[in-house]
Amino acid sequence: MDATLSPGGAAGDAAVARVPHGPAHVVTIDLGQRSYPILIGAGLLREPATWAGLPRASTAVIVSNTTVAPLYAAALHAALAPHYPRVLEVVLPDGEAHKDWPTLNRIFDALLEQACDRKTVLLALGGGVIGDMTGFAAACYMRGVPFVQVPTTLLAQVDSSVGGKTAINHPLGKNMIGAFYQPVRVVCDLDTLATLPAREYSAGLAEVIKYGPIFDPAFLDWIEAHLGALMARDPVAVAYAVRRSCEIKAAVVGEDERESGLRAILNFGHTFGHAIEAGLGYGAWLHGEAVGCGMVMAATLSQRLGRVSQAYVERLTRLTAAAGLPTRAPVLGPDNAARYLALMRVDKKAEGGAIRFVVVDEQGHAALQAVPDAVVAEVIEACSR
Amino acid sequence: MDATLSPGGAAGDAAVARVPHGPAHVVTIDLGQRSYPILIGAGLLREPATWAGLPRASTAVIVSNTTVAPLYAAALHAALAPHYPRVLEVVLPDGEAHKDWPTLNRIFDALLEQACDRKTVLLALGGGVIGDMTGFAAACYMRGVPFVQVPTTLLAQVDSSVGGKTAINHPLGKNMIGAFYQPVRVVCDLDTLATLPAREYSAGLAEVIKYGPIFDPAFLDWIEAHLGALMARDPVAVAYAVRRSCEIKAAVVGEDERESGLRAILNFGHTFGHAIEAGLGYGAWLHGEAVGCGMVMAATLSQRLGRVSQAYVERLTRLTAAAGLPTRAPVLGPDNAARYLALMRVDKKAEGGAIRFVVVDEQGHAALQAVPDAVVAEVIEACSR
Repeated sequence: MDATLSPGGAAGDAAVARVPHGPAHVVTIDLGQRSYPILIGAGLLREPATWAGLPRASTAVIVSNTTVAPLYAAALHAALAPHYPRVLEVVLPDGEAHKDWPTLNRIFDALLEQACDRKTVLLALGGGVIGDMTGFAAACYMRGVPFVQVPTTLLAQVDSSVGGKTAINHPLGKNMIGAFYQPVRVVCDLDTLATLPAREYSAGLAEVIKYGPIFDPAFLDWIEAHLGALMARDPVAVAYAVRRSCEIKAAVVGEDERESGLRAILNFGHTFGHAIEAGLGYGAWLHGEAVGCGMVMAATLSQRLGRVSQAYVERLTRLTAAAGLPTRAPVLGPDNAARYLALMRVDKKAEGGAIRFVVVDEQGHAALQAVPDAVVAEVIEACSR
Repeated sequence: MDATLSPGGAAGDAAVARVPHGPAHVVTIDLGQRSYPILIGAGLLREPATWAGLPRASTAVIVSNTTVAPLYAAALHAALAPHYPRVLEVVLPDGEAHKDWPTLNRIFDALLEQACDRKTVLLALGGGVIGDMTGFAAACYMRGVPFVQVPTTLLAQVDSSVGGKTAINHPLGKNMIGAFYQPVRVVCDLDTLATLPAREYSAGLAEVIKYGPIFDPAFLDWIEAHLGALMARDPVAVAYAVRRSCEIKAAVVGEDERESGLRAILNFGHTFGHAIEAGLGYGAWLHGEAVGCGMVMAATLSQRLGRVSQAYVERLTRLTAAAGLPTRAPVLGPDNAARYLALMRVDKKAEGGAIRFVVVDEQGHAALQAVPDAVVAEVIEACSR
């Protein structure tokens, strides 16, 4: 949308006057035969070109939730109607608490009740929960049907809709049941962010900030310099943040689709964050809030391991707070650290009982490292008391 | 196990005196990086060489059922113990009626309760239901862990354990929720067939017979010539039947892993068969029994379409009956044909409402063909009244 902004460059205010509904910016996820484009731009939902060239089928099914469907399902329905003889909608309850099997099964129920065949195209219209569940439903329905991500939250646009990770939660762990299953297209209509509540917008910023420490110090500088514009949802700043986030995610996922190595760095802050989410009960904190706080904890851990300075931890803490995110970890009961450790031991990055953490340095390099429990416990106590 | 038998060759009686526990015969499924061997032989479960070179992990988990676990889990456990620090067992209720989400979730519960990480190796010890559920659990647990098929029924050895189709049933359709997910190895220990009830053994023969009409008329001749030996579970005849079935399945799956074309021929008899299973309630007839009867129906359909002679239909019907399988279709209520058609319309091969059937000729060529409802209804009535 705006090719002139670059990491560390000047604020984008001068560009606000540009035609907001220009052609989509395209970031490509390069995965050989499974490559696909991420379209980023304003007004894409209503733009006919957005929906050209999708897989042909007799039925398209929009999966959304009770919050997002009233806002955007009609527009998407109208945009799909020229391409599919039948467009159906499945509306699920909203929230992380519903990212479970019974809710997923409502998608299967609807697909089977409507006799949807295995060419049926699913479209995930909503945030990360809808994207993860619709993607997993697409991965499993008749052993795989095509799907399109239409993320309507900042978090989903910059992170969860891109890269093919799909899952539901299990009572004993987040995202434990899922699949690597790539969409055929991702459509990020920036206009949909206008209706996003402030709390969810901030949660999305956590994943934007993440790309700085793990990959691109210049982007971290840019975020810091433009945080005011981002908080004000300045369209040019937001467009750049989404685009750069997707570029970084595309580069990482293109190298390591199934998280055998590099991809794990995208989980910076997530090991602590998942423990917070599970410990408080899914939905108490938003995923992005837990990740924001988790990044502060992971930066603190990196500092204890001698990888970053205390000043860097403070800088990241300030930035996280300024983005409207919590930076103090919740206390999970009297055995606080032990509870965190127990919750983190079922993290998918754990192997043979050892918890592995994404740690960073100040040059934008991330690494996965097993850390002794005692050190982790110190960090937990320092961050939560 | 026996390289001298060939399609249409002499009966294998003379070879019975051979050393029964010779080296495994190996059939390779060629899928590039996901290629894997099928080991076929007597005594493989207890043979240390069978278990060498599997993926390393801190934990191996044997998934079995209440019927098979008491017979073979201890032997498998002992064979795995030198390779894995921890070997766990998950024992599920037996039967197609349990091929559902709640039972699948018992595997996830056990894996998470035992803090199994994403290198954990699952081993499916049992028939098709255990193989399908364990494979799907492996596909989904933490987005994918390795698994080994250890089929203990004839049906699983010749068909369901090979080729990476995994699934559970949905109340509205069989195998509707699943994944294409390949095992790292298949171990067919022919000794385990000794404990198989006659009814299940016959059900397995249905899938053996299937390979004749769809691919190899000489194999059909061989089965006909050796049906007495097969029914007597003559070890050499059984070894050849398993091996030739796996060779044909490997050839088909190697061409078309995800059933975009050729692979569908393996479902000869299955479209009718699935309707029988669903119509009577899963578990009333065994899958192989429904397929046996379904093959007679599909052959009858092929005859109505002018592809095979009436004599061929009668020949296949005789062979199916001699294998101990039903050849008359059940009547599914007063609107019999309509009920069959409704059940078949949710078949995964259906597209845009048209039911597609695998039909054959007498030269071992199979094809997928959409057939008018009226013609199908005639076949249903002819086969079930």
